[in-house]
Amino acid sequence: MGLRDLALVEPWYFPHADATARASGAEDILASAQVVDNLDDAIADCVYVAGASARARSIDWPMMEPRECAVKLLEESRAGKVAVLFGPEKSGLKNEHLDRCNTLLTIPTDPGFSSLNLAMAVQIMTYELRVTAGTMPTPVTEAKVPLASAAELEHFYEHLETVLSASGFLDPDNPRHLMRRLRRLFARAEPDKNEINILRGILTSLDPARGHRD
Amino acid sequence: MGLRDLALVEPWYFPHADATARASGAEDILASAQVVDNLDDAIADCVYVAGASARARSIDWPMMEPRECAVKLLEESRAGKVAVLFGPEKSGLKNEHLDRCNTLLTIPTDPGFSSLNLAMAVQIMTYELRVTAGTMPTPVTEAKVPLASAAELEHFYEHLETVLSASGFLDPDNPRHLMRRLRRLFARAEPDKNEINILRGILTSLDPARGHRD
Repeated sequence: MGLRDLALVEPWYFPHADATARASGAEDILASAQVVDNLDDAIADCVYVAGASARARSIDWPMMEPRECAVKLLEESRAGKVAVLFGPEKSGLKNEHLDRCNTLLTIPTDPGFSSLNLAMAVQIMTYELRVTAGTMPTPVTEAKVPLASAAELEHFYEHLETVLSASGFLDPDNPRHLMRRLRRLFARAEPDKNEINILRGILTSLDPARGHRD
Repeated sequence: MGLRDLALVEPWYFPHADATARASGAEDILASAQVVDNLDDAIADCVYVAGASARARSIDWPMMEPRECAVKLLEESRAGKVAVLFGPEKSGLKNEHLDRCNTLLTIPTDPGFSSLNLAMAVQIMTYELRVTAGTMPTPVTEAKVPLASAAELEHFYEHLETVLSASGFLDPDNPRHLMRRLRRLFARAEPDKNEINILRGILTSLDPARGHRD
């Protein structure tokens, strides 16, 4: 479908003869895949990430179908790199992975068969990206501040969690639920680099342990 | 994707344990598949047939991409059954099969990789049908004459070929090229049952061998 930039997070085997055989002429894409130990490394330089998920989630994650998601990804790609994240065949993405996403991507299926296999999900989404890319209007160039990258957001969330723990606002035994809601909030806002710097500055200024922290 | 009506034309093996295993919960659809010896039996009651083809063809077949094709199929499905026809994994559909189609269906791909495998092609087209079905406006009911079925069209083409051969208009050593062009013409017109009856009546009336044929 014309996409070339593949990252593999903790693959069981790489390279693998089966994968090479199935590449069917796209061996170069497989051979040049970025292989990383954790998801954050794969998406560090991305400004927008969509995570494929068949399951309905308990929390109010934004949810898009492929066509809407393709438009959003292509719009965001004007500001920087974007990614579509797919989970392992059997288990799909975990919540800790979806926490890194700006939106969930859900492919509509027959209600009796809610989960597509991995290859099919990738095929549909890459198809939508190809078709949508061919129909998107040329953007009006704007002198905009670049969006914060995933790595910058992660640093911000770490900073936020540290400060909220220090303040006693976060339950140190179970910080996750609240952090997840805060992630959703900021992910929807899509902060740019300047805004993240401002937020980091605010956190530093409000940190109860200020002056006591290394 | 919610489609249930599967026909298999001359399958190498049926049933087959691999196919059953891969059905992943859709064993009932596979088990109730219609298995036939030739394509005409599979599409006999269809009023519109789209044939998937990766190759550009020498003759001017109408060609649609999946989204446009899904709209067309759903519109035509108000008049009767419709079908999407996929060829064997290795060889694809032959021209004699595409002759039975109202349109070719071509899935856009990277120019370097023009042929998807069968499962991927089926996945994309069934996905488009599902998504498009969810967005089509409710039709205004019209009291229309039903379209001619594929079987009725085949009888017409046989009749036409017989009459044109008798007239000397068709080269009996190579009737195919002209018949193909005529098929394209009539397929674009999408004749209804009344119109096919009229055409058949015209052929009978013009048959040089009239009165001499059994």
